[in-house]
Amino acid sequence: MRHHPELDLRSSLRAQAGQQLADLDPRSTVGFPGKGKAQAPALTAALAPELSDWQERLYAESRDDDMPSRALLVILQGMDTSGKGGIIRHVFGLVDPQGLALHAFKQPTKEELSHNFLWRIKRALPDRGMIGIFDRSQYEDVLIGRVDQLVSPEVWQQRYLQINRFEADLVAHGVTVMKCFLHISPDEQKKRLLERLDNPEKHWKFSASDVPVRRKWPQYQEAYQDAINQCNTDAAPWYVIPSDRKWYRNWAVARLLLEHLREMRPAWPPAEFDVAAMRLAVEESLPSGA
Amino acid sequence: MRHHPELDLRSSLRAQAGQQLADLDPRSTVGFPGKGKAQAPALTAALAPELSDWQERLYAESRDDDMPSRALLVILQGMDTSGKGGIIRHVFGLVDPQGLALHAFKQPTKEELSHNFLWRIKRALPDRGMIGIFDRSQYEDVLIGRVDQLVSPEVWQQRYLQINRFEADLVAHGVTVMKCFLHISPDEQKKRLLERLDNPEKHWKFSASDVPVRRKWPQYQEAYQDAINQCNTDAAPWYVIPSDRKWYRNWAVARLLLEHLREMRPAWPPAEFDVAAMRLAVEESLPSGA
Repeated sequence: MRHHPELDLRSSLRAQAGQQLADLDPRSTVGFPGKGKAQAPALTAALAPELSDWQERLYAESRDDDMPSRALLVILQGMDTSGKGGIIRHVFGLVDPQGLALHAFKQPTKEELSHNFLWRIKRALPDRGMIGIFDRSQYEDVLIGRVDQLVSPEVWQQRYLQINRFEADLVAHGVTVMKCFLHISPDEQKKRLLERLDNPEKHWKFSASDVPVRRKWPQYQEAYQDAINQCNTDAAPWYVIPSDRKWYRNWAVARLLLEHLREMRPAWPPAEFDVAAMRLAVEESLPSGA
Repeated sequence: MRHHPELDLRSSLRAQAGQQLADLDPRSTVGFPGKGKAQAPALTAALAPELSDWQERLYAESRDDDMPSRALLVILQGMDTSGKGGIIRHVFGLVDPQGLALHAFKQPTKEELSHNFLWRIKRALPDRGMIGIFDRSQYEDVLIGRVDQLVSPEVWQQRYLQINRFEADLVAHGVTVMKCFLHISPDEQKKRLLERLDNPEKHWKFSASDVPVRRKWPQYQEAYQDAINQCNTDAAPWYVIPSDRKWYRNWAVARLLLEHLREMRPAWPPAEFDVAAMRLAVEESLPSGA
């Protein structure tokens, strides 16, 4: 396995103070070690063995109560068609599904609305040892909640601090949080929406509500900008993933995932039994050919 | 994609009335279209595109309330090391994790024990459009429940009928049930248990309780034999998967999965909107370069 020790994609993609989304190129391929699209599937697939190994270690660690209790939570946010589903399929499809806990947050139910906005989030947190993936998240409540004025400005403005506290608490309890904003251009979104309309096998992915949301593109970008600025903490930083090129987006998220797992460095738990004695017990447990 | 129209693995692997597990060769490679192990990974991977396509159709279908409500439930049963986890990783890892609903049944909790044995099973059933995978299942209650005399014979003997009724009801409500018994030999289990003990990276997979269970091999085979005989209904038949060769086991379950999905034949749902009008709305939704 090549380790690209020189590459630190977290530094390259971490949101910066004062940075404007409008100044970030959604077609960027920063850090990509190949020449372009043709090499991307192989370079992404090449990360799979090491990703699988770390994922299995994280899971194994969780089976031992004497080991630290940890999990990794990946948050995916972005406009329609930005690639949340594509990342789950192509990046998280690289590891054992037994180690994944997916949760897609839809329009809140009546019951969910009767609680604080973080209530449904807390109920969906990954168990120990798991890689949790949130397809949308608590950030919806400072995105659509703000753009569509579902709550007053006083309410959504307070939520940034509530989110920061919540995430700091998660991190303090052993959950590494990896927040990805999938940055696409409005022209790329138009292209992808039209592709869905032009292909009957993709009609089911299109919703009539995609158009009114698209009409509010500038308001959403402003809301994303604020969410990223306000909640870009050291405990739980934001990464802005250039996502106009799907092949780069997939590679970048796989690579970020790898960098996070390497830093967590989960270890195989030690045997909780006498290996030699257990070996003998297995050998003697049953007459051969029973 | 090659369709192997001649191959019907369901017929080859379906449990037969009067058949004895002891007479079935766990090293069999019945139906395998290649020459042996070397070709197996490629032949299994070759099933992935069609599996993925059906899985996505099943999921897409579920997004449309006017389409039939269906799901596929795969039940994996077998002795320790028979490969339940390996199948989830290698076979179900071939499709989009968004379409999978995994559930591993452990020793029942106090709450679960306070209910009928099917209570926890019903709560874990896959949602519409999903491929559900049960790693162990309701059958534990006629396996360990019988071998370890956790309940009286009168109780476990009634459970076969209860399971048959439950599964028939599932099928009547659109859930296709695919039950796989992973058939291994005691010598192969010994080899795999010793491998786990000889590799520190696999110690976490070994449990001290594996040995006492292994000592009851004949009692477990008898319990599996009865579970298969008593619950081998046409609505929800049992398949006996020869599992001493991991490469065959993985190919066979992938192939069975494919045959079940083909028979379900999920279809892309029709657009619920005027495609031309929606195309125009997308085109006009935002000034270019906004």
